[in-house]
Parts: sequence; structure tokens; C-alpha cells
Amino acid sequence: MTPIDAKTQVCAVIGHPIGHSLSPALHNAAFAALELPLVYVAHDVLPGCVGRAMEGIRALGYRGLSVTIPHKVKAMEVVDQVDPTARAIGCINTVVHEGGCLLGSNSDGRGALNALRQAGCDPTGKNVLVLGSGGAARAIAMTLACEAPPARLEILGVEPDELERLVRDVQQRGQVPAGGARLTRATLCEHLGTADVLMHCSPIGMHPNEDASLVPAEYLRPELLVFDAVYNPRQTRLLRDASAAGCATVEGLEMFLGQAAVQFELWTGVPAPHEVMRRVVEAHL
Amino acid sequence: MTPIDAKTQVCAVIGHPIGHSLSPALHNAAFAALELPLVYVAHDVLPGCVGRAMEGIRALGYRGLSVTIPHKVKAMEVVDQVDPTARAIGCINTVVHEGGCLLGSNSDGRGALNALRQAGCDPTGKNVLVLGSGGAARAIAMTLACEAPPARLEILGVEPDELERLVRDVQQRGQVPAGGARLTRATLCEHLGTADVLMHCSPIGMHPNEDASLVPAEYLRPELLVFDAVYNPRQTRLLRDASAAGCATVEGLEMFLGQAAVQFELWTGVPAPHEVMRRVVEAHL
Repeated sequence: MTPIDAKTQVCAVIGHPIGHSLSPALHNAAFAALELPLVYVAHDVLPGCVGRAMEGIRALGYRGLSVTIPHKVKAMEVVDQVDPTARAIGCINTVVHEGGCLLGSNSDGRGALNALRQAGCDPTGKNVLVLGSGGAARAIAMTLACEAPPARLEILGVEPDELERLVRDVQQRGQVPAGGARLTRATLCEHLGTADVLMHCSPIGMHPNEDASLVPAEYLRPELLVFDAVYNPRQTRLLRDASAAGCATVEGLEMFLGQAAVQFELWTGVPAPHEVMRRVVEAHL
Repeated sequence: MTPIDAKTQVCAVIGHPIGHSLSPALHNAAFAALELPLVYVAHDVLPGCVGRAMEGIRALGYRGLSVTIPHKVKAMEVVDQVDPTARAIGCINTVVHEGGCLLGSNSDGRGALNALRQAGCDPTGKNVLVLGSGGAARAIAMTLACEAPPARLEILGVEPDELERLVRDVQQRGQVPAGGARLTRATLCEHLGTADVLMHCSPIGMHPNEDASLVPAEYLRPELLVFDAVYNPRQTRLLRDASAAGCATVEGLEMFLGQAAVQFELWTGVPAPHEVMRRVVEAHL
């Protein structure tokens, strides 16, 4: 990596716990590849210390931050400005420090959106079906609603309150026709019949339950693009079934890389070296 | 250097301005040489932001800090504990973060003391003459008084109030027989006649005035050990004259390296790699 001297700018991830984060390896490799005078470290910040950590970021002159679990909501409350999409999502995962001002944003949904676009699929004007209503589903649904509005956004979930709130927020803030229903075999079958894009945002299929899938293989039509937010394993049961059915697929790994690339570009102002970042993550998975 | 991952601990220097600090190069080389999982960065902290920076250090879980101009006094006020020597000096240049507690200390005088000892001269019980009463003189005089008490400590200076305060503090806190006088050719000649160790702590002789020296060459006896806090140039006029007179000499570079080694050992708990650190500084000077 580029030698660190007294002019090297500092970025970091804050979270708790943080010891297994790939972000330092990922961003330092990217900084080094472009010989940028930046370094990226990890800080284990306890709940209750986010406000002081953030004041420290400002006083110490950090260039930027990644924010991860469990600090994404609290961090949004203590930065100076929050971009509209992050405000709609309700949490931030990125801070840019610009002239003493801390700007919060959320690159999770943009990571998924960029991954779709790189796969040749712009969801704007399409029928999008989201499975799940938790953090990933919310980031993706609100980002699509705000930045690439689908013709219709249907959300199937199992947590009624969370689902209802997400559908209402998509309708209100994104001004996108949206609906929600309890996730069952029947609702799945119904909505998969008209969907152009399937965004799987539940944890089903994640290691060690690699043979599980929410979606019966026989419902998958080759016209459907299938995205899976799960990235361990990279080829989930859902993606394997989708490939077998002739569908285009997008791995969760692309969303992880995409959100990191968005952060990198906010901090540095230069295009992220995608292949460098991909090699780092592939080496660790 | 050792790759940075999410378990890498962070140390930093805070100061203003900070862009020319050698400390990141010095400490990162030392961490790398011993393959320690630490990284050292520099933060430009504006006056007025030291308290928030220090709270940030705590919340972000830094391992330790170097503190430099103009923050050494303010930093002492905001840490949780201050070691007795640093308290006597009146400022800190080192912070160790231990179990949520910020411990302040001052390694400047210890750096000079260690440099004397490495040159085979323990000042304990000797007659020590200090020239100057500013920050370096104060750190050195108080550290000797607290940790290696001379038989007598004589201080010659040109700032009456600063000089009087330093002499009084050495007498009171260090319980060392001490005296002070205005620095003139006559007082110099008088006290050099009985001194075993001369500690030059004024800026005279520093680049670009490399031919200046406070001490007439004819006053230098071969029994005297001569230390010069100036490190640019390494061989000041005073040290060249002292060598010519047959005196043992200690360069200011040794004090700079010594204070950094003390910090390194406080943060890591392992002996500092002196030769690695020396090569970094020599390469930059």
C-alpha cells in the first residue's frame, strides 16, 4: 500500500463488533491501486458512544466513514446533513466530511441498483417484486422508489408492521405505486407472474442453510431477472434455480461491492477500481 | 507494512499544523519491523477541538496518541490521568488508552535521559547545567529532577519569569538543589567550570544559523558531556566544538528517537526497534 505519512487522509468503518469486517482490506487495496494518499481503518465503537465518535471524526479531520451495524440509525441522527434517499431509508452507512460538515448517505440500495444496471437491467419502469421487509429490503425498495422508480413495486414479507410501514413509505416518499402482502406460496406465485425483476432480500439461503430457497423453482420464468442479497454462498439455491430456469442473475456480492464502490467514489472523487475490489472480496469469501 | 484489517489497532499524532511530522513514517516502520497489528496516522486538529478530539480517541478505541504543538498543555487537561513527571513538566506528549482510560505522560525528557544513558552517562548525582528555560529545557530539567536527580541542577536563561518558575519547580517538585541565573558569558564560564553535563536546550545553532553557538569553544573541557537538543543540523556548531575539545557528545536526534521509542514501548509493551527508527529519521533529515 501507499506509505502513510502526515498528509495521508483517514477513512474508517465504525460498528460493533467490527473484527470481521472486510472493508479495511477492500478500501485499502482500492486506495493503493490508484496510489491515493488515503488509509482506511476499523473502529469498534460501543453503543452509546456514536455521538462522541462522530464528534471525534470531525475534530480529527477524517475524510469519511462507513457505518455498520448497530450504528446506522444513530449515526443518521448525529450527522449535519442527510441525503434524501438515506432519510427515506431511515439510516446511513456512509459519511463524507466536507469542510467541517458531516454528510450522511446510504449506499446499500445504490449498490444493488448499480449491480442491476451492470447486469443490463434498469428497474426504472419495470415491475419489481421484493421479498422481505427488513434492513436490506428497505434500503433497496426506498432507493429504487427514490432514484429508479419502478412501474410498480410489490413487497412480500412476514413481519406485518415492518411490511406495512415499508409499503406506506415507498408510496409516500417515492411516489411509486406499491403494494404489500404476506409472503405465501400463493402470493409468490401471483406476483411472480407479472414481475420483471425479483429482489430477494431475506436471509433464507444463507450459509449454513445453503439448500433453502423461498421461491419454488417452477415459478421462475426465463424473462425474470433474479437478484439475491445473500452473498454467502455466492451461488445461493435461488440463483442456481434461476440460472437453471434461464433467468439472468445478480449475486449479493455485487451489491456489497457496489455499495463500497459508491462510498469510495464519494470520498475520493475518482472512479472505484472495481476489479481490484472484487479480487479482495473473492479472496476472502 | 503489515496489511491493515479490522483488528488493526490505531495510533496517531495530533497537532496543528501536522503535515511535516515524521512520526507516521517512524512508528509505522517500527510496527512493520516487528509485524505488530498497529497503524499510525496523523490528524490535523485545530485549536479549540482538542477536547472533542480526545473524546473521539476514547470512543473510537485508539490505542494511543502522540501530542505535539500546540496541544500539549490542553491535552493534559482533558486526559483521565497524568503521570507525575508530566504533571511536573506541565504538559503531555503521549497518551495511552487503557480500558477506556486515557493516561497522559511526557516522553520528551525521558528521550533525552535515555540518550544520555546510552552514551554512558547517568546524570544522577552529577552537576548538570541547562541552557534555556523553554519547553525542551523544562521537559528535560523536570524529568531529570523527578527521575534521575542530579547533585545540582543549574539553569541559565534569558526569560526571567520562565526561568524563575522552572528553577522553583525543580526545587519544589524534584527536591533537587537548583539555581538559575541570567545567561551571560560570565555565568556560563562560572557554571561550566563545575558542570559534568551540559544540556543545550535553546534554539541557537539550528538551521539556517548553523554557525551560531551559545558556548565559547574555549570554555569546553574534555570531562564535560555535551548534549544539544537541536537536531537540524545533527552536528551543531556546539557539538563540533565539543568534539574538537575532546568532550563526549549526544545529538538532539537521539532525544527525538528516544522520546519516540518511549511512546512505542508504552503502546506496544515491546522494546522499540531503535535501528529501524534511526534509519527512517536519518533518511528524512
